[in-house]
Amino acid sequence: MTERTVGEMGEIAVVERILAMTASTHAHADPGTEESRADSGRVTVGPGDDAAVVAAPDGRVVITTDMLVEGRHFRRDWSRAEDIGCKAAAENLADIAAMGARATGLVVALALPPETDVAWVDGFLEGLLEEAARAGTTLLGGDLVAADSITIGVTAFGDLGGRRPVLRSSACAGDVVAVCGSLGCAAAGLAVLSRGFRSPRALVDAHRRPRPDYTAGLRANDAGVHAMMDVSDGLLIDARRLAQASGVDIDITAADLPVDDVLASTAAAYNLDPLQWVLGGGDDHALLATFASGRDVPEGFTVIGSVSEAGSQGPTVTVDGKKRDHLTGFEHFRS
Amino acid sequence: MTERTVGEMGEIAVVERILAMTASTHAHADPGTEESRADSGRVTVGPGDDAAVVAAPDGRVVITTDMLVEGRHFRRDWSRAEDIGCKAAAENLADIAAMGARATGLVVALALPPETDVAWVDGFLEGLLEEAARAGTTLLGGDLVAADSITIGVTAFGDLGGRRPVLRSSACAGDVVAVCGSLGCAAAGLAVLSRGFRSPRALVDAHRRPRPDYTAGLRANDAGVHAMMDVSDGLLIDARRLAQASGVDIDITAADLPVDDVLASTAAAYNLDPLQWVLGGGDDHALLATFASGRDVPEGFTVIGSVSEAGSQGPTVTVDGKKRDHLTGFEHFRS
Repeated sequence: MTERTVGEMGEIAVVERILAMTASTHAHADPGTEESRADSGRVTVGPGDDAAVVAAPDGRVVITTDMLVEGRHFRRDWSRAEDIGCKAAAENLADIAAMGARATGLVVALALPPETDVAWVDGFLEGLLEEAARAGTTLLGGDLVAADSITIGVTAFGDLGGRRPVLRSSACAGDVVAVCGSLGCAAAGLAVLSRGFRSPRALVDAHRRPRPDYTAGLRANDAGVHAMMDVSDGLLIDARRLAQASGVDIDITAADLPVDDVLASTAAAYNLDPLQWVLGGGDDHALLATFASGRDVPEGFTVIGSVSEAGSQGPTVTVDGKKRDHLTGFEHFRS
Repeated sequence: MTERTVGEMGEIAVVERILAMTASTHAHADPGTEESRADSGRVTVGPGDDAAVVAAPDGRVVITTDMLVEGRHFRRDWSRAEDIGCKAAAENLADIAAMGARATGLVVALALPPETDVAWVDGFLEGLLEEAARAGTTLLGGDLVAADSITIGVTAFGDLGGRRPVLRSSACAGDVVAVCGSLGCAAAGLAVLSRGFRSPRALVDAHRRPRPDYTAGLRANDAGVHAMMDVSDGLLIDARRLAQASGVDIDITAADLPVDDVLASTAAAYNLDPLQWVLGGGDDHALLATFASGRDVPEGFTVIGSVSEAGSQGPTVTVDGKKRDHLTGFEHFRS
């Protein structure tokens, strides 16, 4: 192969290359048969037609979409193509898990400068397919367009398997608050990269390649979780969203927060409070959930706080009884 | 309201504004009840949570995604925000119709420069919601991010209602080829705008605001259509895709092609062959379909050619028996 950029190769050839990479992940079935309709998660029409068709055995489909913009959500000098593909898949698949559902597929729209190396597209697809496989699913289709910079749009789908969708709005006074997954490591990794370093590797990798536990949402749903959401913008800002949606107060016990050892030592080296990352950092895609108190939380979840009736100031989130509003994440358009 | 740009207003306020605009289009139901699960096309969880949930009564869901990039797929000086919203919805909803399905929802990811007027976002949403309503559906959710230029990612969903998905690959030798919808008007409108004119208005509007017939795909499916696809890149290039997917030859009869009167007179004024637009122009989102011969085609469809076994040169598309390869649309990355 002498063609090295997508512009040299041409849209049709690049799309054919992507189709060949994804084809092996599909278990095609005759789209018309009852069998394929009933088979959970089965792709009945994969990429290459006007639209894809995937089984939705529950009779409802869970849908989420996210867009990643080069220079704002990723940098090609900080993350490999594989990492960016993984991250694009992970942040959407984590939203499916946060509804208490199982992922059934994703589609990706890719805007690329014509001078993008075909090898970058290969790497991106590899990372995306690998992460989709971690969630037990694959790529159903997509779109490829030319642009001045890279923009990635991913939409992911899930099936509830007869379960109820777990909303942010169903936390009850008296619940315990629990998290599953790491908190602050991705933000610490971004801080490391921003200072020009490439280590500690564990933190940099957490930023480049979040690795949510996609089965935790199902476990929580089966355990009767009350409210649940993906922590994408930081624990405090997302807990506030959950509190507001549910009309409750949340208090977090700082001593109960899981603080990664490497994060703690890096914070010490930078002379920072590790809670700045743990409470304020996004992009780890941990699950934040509330459960009825007095029972064990599901495997992988750690109790970090409690839910009470909203006080006179309306729904608030406190840490050890105090407001920590200076740590409530970032605003895309004001930053 | 004194805030005029999305950057001044902030992400959260803009999202709340969008949610308020879409809320009225949702018939919310208790997501846990059997009734809401069985109710065709019902939105059980709308925008505002980690993911949306929509009914998929067929047990399968049809999915398509498209990305529109400012300067490549639209220009803000040529199209109003309402038109761009309409077009973004239409090109996805047309793909759902082309599978022989009924639209059940769409999600939109929007990358916007912080200096974008909030009024532009309002207009975009209005156009998108209006076109979604034409297809009997609405907006389920989305994502809003900052970027240097506007990029729009739309993903649309559909339900087959027990019908089979209509593929590009099922054309049979002996079929008639038919189209439903206008051909070339959007391309002629783009040519008019490119020459610095704003009229004829009918052509400019066809470019700005394609208006596919979303029920035609269902009618075709119910009438036993063999193969079908959306004409997005031009009749010849899309007919070639259908011929290749089906392994057949297609011959189009030029005299049977529907040629819009305004298109014809504009081509004459520009001293162009109108077939350049009719055969080569994309973006009208007409349906291209093949039906068993000897029966009436469904209402709205016009027979324009025939399908035969692929000859020695493999699947080809001819017009009156001759190749017209110079009119086979454009390549995004080579243009």
